[in-house]
Amino acid sequence: MDFTDPNGRTAPGAETHAGPVTLVNSFVVPEGRDEAFLELWTATSRYFRAQPGFVSLRLHRAVSSDAPHRFVNVAVWESAAHYRAPHQTEEFVRLVTQEGWREFPSSPALYEVVVEHQLEPSRG
Amino acid sequence: MDFTDPNGRTAPGAETHAGPVTLVNSFVVPEGRDEAFLELWTATSRYFRAQPGFVSLRLHRAVSSDAPHRFVNVAVWESAAHYRAPHQTEEFVRLVTQEGWREFPSSPALYEVVVEHQLEPSRG
Repeated sequence: MDFTDPNGRTAPGAETHAGPVTLVNSFVVPEGRDEAFLELWTATSRYFRAQPGFVSLRLHRAVSSDAPHRFVNVAVWESAAHYRAPHQTEEFVRLVTQEGWREFPSSPALYEVVVEHQLEPSRG
Repeated sequence: MDFTDPNGRTAPGAETHAGPVTLVNSFVVPEGRDEAFLELWTATSRYFRAQPGFVSLRLHRAVSSDAPHRFVNVAVWESAAHYRAPHQTEEFVRLVTQEGWREFPSSPALYEVVVEHQLEPSRG
């Protein structure tokens, strides 16, 4: 896959899905390249955070160096349509076709939350 | 990999990591097998939720049928040690060596949150 192709940077499907969606996007980052990745990712994430329908994100880094995916972004959007709209702009294409991204393959996919549990405070 | 081997069901590394960790565990589930997966996963998750140091979990299902990983569990633990302890019991081995699990390969890995953003309520 050509990782400067904007289509490879957008989660497929979900056109008809109603309700909130969670993007899970896992990145392969070669050893020692965390800073270069974070620079590119931060610029792209700044663009997405300013869009209507963005709810939250958490960027995770593996605590062990042997994880196949060094970074995982988990981001919530109000709907699949809200997620998709900012992936169809010239600014998006400009951001993700930067040569630097070639080094960091990603696998974006959209999910819905089907089970949720949280420790009850009383148990703590 | 033998997916009834308990070692394949435990995220590697992180022995020396301090602070909270997030498990990201992606599952391959053949089409039409959601219910069989959910039955096994729910029994296993009930065991983990009762353990010291468990904080929260969200089980995600792909909104599109072509996602390589149909389910992704994102679970927070107080520490890597808290995550690891219940993976070293006879009950854990009994749960994950059930024949049914053979059908559902998983890739558990531990992460730390390095960036977090939430929509400010005033912008909504």
